[in-house]
Amino acid sequence: MEISVQAFQVIAIFISALSLGIAGWLYTWVKAQPSSNPRIKEIGEYIRQGANTFLKREYQVLARFTAIAAVLILILLPRPIWTGNVSENIWMAVSYIFGTVLSALAGKIGIQVATIANIKAAEAAKKGIKPAFMAGFRGGAVMGMAVVGTSLLGVSLVLMLTGDASSVLGFSFGASSLALFAKAGGGIFTKTADISADLVGKVEMGIDEDDPRNPAVIADNVGDNVGDVAGMGADLFDSNVASMSAALVMATSLGGLTGNNVKMVFAYAAIGLLASIIGVSSARIGKNGDPNKALNSSTYVTTAIFAILTAVVTYLFGFEWRIWGATAVGLIVGTVIGITTDYFTNDAKPPVQQVANASKNGPAFTVLSGFSYALLSSLPALIGIAVSALLAFNICAPLGAESGMVAEYGMFGISMSALGMLSIVGMIISNDAYGPIVDNSRGLAEMGGYGEEVIAICDELDSAGNTVKAVTKGFSISAAGLTVISLLGAFMSEVNDAARAIGMVDSSRFIENFDILNPTVFFGLIIGVAIPAVFSAMLMLGVDKNAQRMVAEIHRQFDTIPGLKEGREDAKPDYDKCIDIATTGSLKELIPAGAFAIVSTIVVGFIGGPQAIGGFLTGNIASGLLLALLMSNAGGLWDNAKKYIEAGNCGGKGSFAHKAGVVGDTVGDPFKDTAGPSINTQITVVSLVASILASLFLQFSIF
Amino acid sequence: MEISVQAFQVIAIFISALSLGIAGWLYTWVKAQPSSNPRIKEIGEYIRQGANTFLKREYQVLARFTAIAAVLILILLPRPIWTGNVSENIWMAVSYIFGTVLSALAGKIGIQVATIANIKAAEAAKKGIKPAFMAGFRGGAVMGMAVVGTSLLGVSLVLMLTGDASSVLGFSFGASSLALFAKAGGGIFTKTADISADLVGKVEMGIDEDDPRNPAVIADNVGDNVGDVAGMGADLFDSNVASMSAALVMATSLGGLTGNNVKMVFAYAAIGLLASIIGVSSARIGKNGDPNKALNSSTYVTTAIFAILTAVVTYLFGFEWRIWGATAVGLIVGTVIGITTDYFTNDAKPPVQQVANASKNGPAFTVLSGFSYALLSSLPALIGIAVSALLAFNICAPLGAESGMVAEYGMFGISMSALGMLSIVGMIISNDAYGPIVDNSRGLAEMGGYGEEVIAICDELDSAGNTVKAVTKGFSISAAGLTVISLLGAFMSEVNDAARAIGMVDSSRFIENFDILNPTVFFGLIIGVAIPAVFSAMLMLGVDKNAQRMVAEIHRQFDTIPGLKEGREDAKPDYDKCIDIATTGSLKELIPAGAFAIVSTIVVGFIGGPQAIGGFLTGNIASGLLLALLMSNAGGLWDNAKKYIEAGNCGGKGSFAHKAGVVGDTVGDPFKDTAGPSINTQITVVSLVASILASLFLQFSIF
Repeated sequence: MEISVQAFQVIAIFISALSLGIAGWLYTWVKAQPSSNPRIKEIGEYIRQGANTFLKREYQVLARFTAIAAVLILILLPRPIWTGNVSENIWMAVSYIFGTVLSALAGKIGIQVATIANIKAAEAAKKGIKPAFMAGFRGGAVMGMAVVGTSLLGVSLVLMLTGDASSVLGFSFGASSLALFAKAGGGIFTKTADISADLVGKVEMGIDEDDPRNPAVIADNVGDNVGDVAGMGADLFDSNVASMSAALVMATSLGGLTGNNVKMVFAYAAIGLLASIIGVSSARIGKNGDPNKALNSSTYVTTAIFAILTAVVTYLFGFEWRIWGATAVGLIVGTVIGITTDYFTNDAKPPVQQVANASKNGPAFTVLSGFSYALLSSLPALIGIAVSALLAFNICAPLGAESGMVAEYGMFGISMSALGMLSIVGMIISNDAYGPIVDNSRGLAEMGGYGEEVIAICDELDSAGNTVKAVTKGFSISAAGLTVISLLGAFMSEVNDAARAIGMVDSSRFIENFDILNPTVFFGLIIGVAIPAVFSAMLMLGVDKNAQRMVAEIHRQFDTIPGLKEGREDAKPDYDKCIDIATTGSLKELIPAGAFAIVSTIVVGFIGGPQAIGGFLTGNIASGLLLALLMSNAGGLWDNAKKYIEAGNCGGKGSFAHKAGVVGDTVGDPFKDTAGPSINTQITVVSLVASILASLFLQFSIF
Repeated sequence: MEISVQAFQVIAIFISALSLGIAGWLYTWVKAQPSSNPRIKEIGEYIRQGANTFLKREYQVLARFTAIAAVLILILLPRPIWTGNVSENIWMAVSYIFGTVLSALAGKIGIQVATIANIKAAEAAKKGIKPAFMAGFRGGAVMGMAVVGTSLLGVSLVLMLTGDASSVLGFSFGASSLALFAKAGGGIFTKTADISADLVGKVEMGIDEDDPRNPAVIADNVGDNVGDVAGMGADLFDSNVASMSAALVMATSLGGLTGNNVKMVFAYAAIGLLASIIGVSSARIGKNGDPNKALNSSTYVTTAIFAILTAVVTYLFGFEWRIWGATAVGLIVGTVIGITTDYFTNDAKPPVQQVANASKNGPAFTVLSGFSYALLSSLPALIGIAVSALLAFNICAPLGAESGMVAEYGMFGISMSALGMLSIVGMIISNDAYGPIVDNSRGLAEMGGYGEEVIAICDELDSAGNTVKAVTKGFSISAAGLTVISLLGAFMSEVNDAARAIGMVDSSRFIENFDILNPTVFFGLIIGVAIPAVFSAMLMLGVDKNAQRMVAEIHRQFDTIPGLKEGREDAKPDYDKCIDIATTGSLKELIPAGAFAIVSTIVVGFIGGPQAIGGFLTGNIASGLLLALLMSNAGGLWDNAKKYIEAGNCGGKGSFAHKAGVVGDTVGDPFKDTAGPSINTQITVVSLVASILASLFLQFSIF
């Protein structure tokens, strides 16, 4: 069967629209759920307002950044405007802006639904785990459907309108740069509030997590939304777009815009979204069911549907089976990485229990053993990434044997394997957004005085959210790794295209490889290693500084507001002040880390040229993957070790071990929710900056 | 002026002998110092016996390992014995054994003098800081002179006798593999004892660091010797030998065994040793002087002498100035790295003070902020390494313009820059060994009841030791990085030599580069990233497990020995039992981590062949440098933050901040004394294994 590329794009757009329609339907469903408790409504409204205020202020800052970046792109990219080709630059700038707008939109939609679903799920928990799960999960699914729908829609539209794969890179760069700052800003906000609330509330005063007396409690719940929902949405929007862009750039360079390879990218991406739609719709839970099982089984359903449908389509349209194979490798390895991540962060497994046990000797042992296990946990994921890159390349390379494009086909294979790993991203986001929603519900149930039983139900939902979250992070970090590898290939072809375009005659500037023994490559590599480390340190120090300000404010309120400590009816904490501190602080700390990553790429590029950038990206991947896995897994592990102790093990709540467990959890918080997950985005942004600036580096570098 | 290579080697041997003579003289001097206190003598004797027992048992284990490795080498390396060339294999095996023996000897000498010097320095502290400093420093200098003397002697002898640079690699591998295990074993021992003693003594019971009631106190002091003296000696012996070997292999491949390049390696190494001899002899301190200044100024003297003398020799013998330049770059960059390391670990600078300040909010903030600053601290060192590699290569590359050996000369430049960085290693070791000696003296002074004033003097000496230690670690990690880069070059030439030797006709197996875009290289790279992480995790989990056993034993003694807690005269703790636990445990945990590093290299080599190994080594360097810098600096920073609080800041001793500071210090202990410094050795060993097995990987790999 043979149909045109346009037909595939139209189908992709159709499925995107379908998913947006389903998102709309789910949103209406969630909104129609009952909510009766006025106290919860009031608090829910606080959270909603806080989240929207933060988002508004954040987007104002980012709009300025975007405007400046768009002007620079217009003048300079892909080639300086004075060298002609004005239209290319205009398209690039427009695509860039389009990327940022869609990314911001994804975050906004997420906040919109999450701040309703939290109230509904809390209310539903009074009726049992089943309705509460459905309210939480469908709230998350709105986000999942909206993010993937818009990303596929965006990529399809950009490619149809511009007819140029490098505009897709511009679109992707827009999405990434916004994600970088949104993730950083949201991550700093959420952990500032979380840590400060815990430190004064739980540790110093011994009151409960969501005690309404705590002035930071609303900020904490706002943080769940702006960090874990909006930030994460922007992040996965970015990963998804980046993997499609990388695949499209490679596919176009192999057989032009109308070839089978481009068709496959759209077909597979559309099938991934379709599979997620079916998976999301199939999510069910028994009356006393296990939410963990419900989340996992719908993920497996999605995976299976994707594998089968892509095989059918490959057969029907006579696509290359080898490319299907590479995609399947990504999917399988992703699942394996998910399972191993689960091993290191699940409280039914030895690592978490050992860390809980070590906590009996004090916090230093919690930190040491958790950190050590997290280091160990990087091994299976790194092996998985290495093996899928090796297999995907070697599976697809023979396709280029005749045309002499062995390496290009191999790289395309790697990009398709990343696409395979991310194919079920709609499902992943739904699961991921479910977490903060039910976390919020727990808080609302407590603040609304719903009683122990309802809180217990919320706790169970929350705990399932934690485990799934660690697993999905493993997925997205690994996929980012593979995407960036294929972006390295894209970078090389961009450089060579640019060299041809500017009629460069010095053939030594053309890139045939990035040789580690070339000192310029090596120079870039070693500098590249430092970037994710410094980037994450800046974010964590931001949290640290900000939390110190907030702790001081909480202390001030407890000291000066009469009756607050004792919980007198008339004593109201000033929630807004805490939200304001978190907002102002995170907006202040949000730009430097991201700017550092971008500027250092530019500096290295102008010092060492494309060769140094090849090394630089590799160094970034090497240390970025290690740190991202280490931090995400350490955070998940410590969180669950604390929960394991709280469940009555190793002395239970209030014991010496528990105090140590809380320290571990506090250290892990910015690890897993601020620094760790921002590193993906950082690596992706750096790769895209490099690809987009390739031509300039080629012409104006020192070495 | 023109003299033969042999003459240079004889001069090198002569200077080695001179340094050994001076070591002997210093040893006699130290031994002749007075020691009158019988209680101190008794405790000193305990420490001495404990250290020697451990060393004996450790060497017994390692002798078996060495024997097995030697047989394997005899059969397989450099080429399987059944393919002829028996004599090459015999030389390789003999060189290997020679390397292990000399490395063990270096450790043994260190223990021998350190366990005397500690008593003498404690005694001398009664007379003031000047004599105490001299006793401690000269004790350390014995170690410095002995280690560098034997390493230069060993390399010179091996090359003279075998006339084959790859035998030098065998010698270096012997030194490295012993260092790997000695560092790991000693590191686990020392931190097991240190952490356990602190945890029960300081934290739980609130008694002083070296209170003689604590059953682990002797084990703690033994640990300083076996970990920081013997282990560190083996480590720097290894680094020094590895840098000379890498330079010699490159030099030989450039102009044969008799060329100017080989002469330069010996000349510069000998001058480095000579400069260290002069520097050590020049170390003086005023009557109320600052030990920090004394240590630093003699280091600068050594550096200056080295720079001048090498220039003179280069002029006299008409050596290439470009190579001198590369060496000078290493020396300068090393100094800069030292200074930046000092910034992040010195308590007069913001990072340490900020961490101390953050501790007021609890241990989670100590850990978070310290970890973040340590991540930041990797940046200047990594930039330094990257810049020196880039400069050294580009300075020396033009030398190969005529002969078409541009890359080879560039790599030789990098290896000479590592040699330059390590040139003053004799001085570095003297400074480094001084630390544990005065640390021990402090313990002895306390246990011997010498009173506050003497302890204060020991404390001042100890604190100077800490700062210098962090600086020297920066030096040795960076030098290891550069050495390993040049070993990568050595690996490539080994592979190509082997390919020619076995008459390989398939030219695709020859290596022209390690291309990052080659999936096999990339596969190796990503796996390589995981190795230092897993290796250090295994060591830290070893400490963790072992410390839990020891803590239980300390509790048992305090609970069952009547009057021990109260400090009754007749109540004696069972020191031996604690030493035994530390010994047995560390011997158990010592093999797996080292074996893991070696075996994974072999597995990757047989899967992906030389190309995968190229990537693997690069991944190892990337994550190894990052983790080593991170861990060493974090440990030093936390240690000094705790000391800063103890000096009366942020609430002072016993405050909430102090408790948090102790947690940070405990986390940092295995970071800086077990895992961090072992990573150098691990990277070096992996590189040497790769170079030695190059021929086998070439013939028998899957991909």
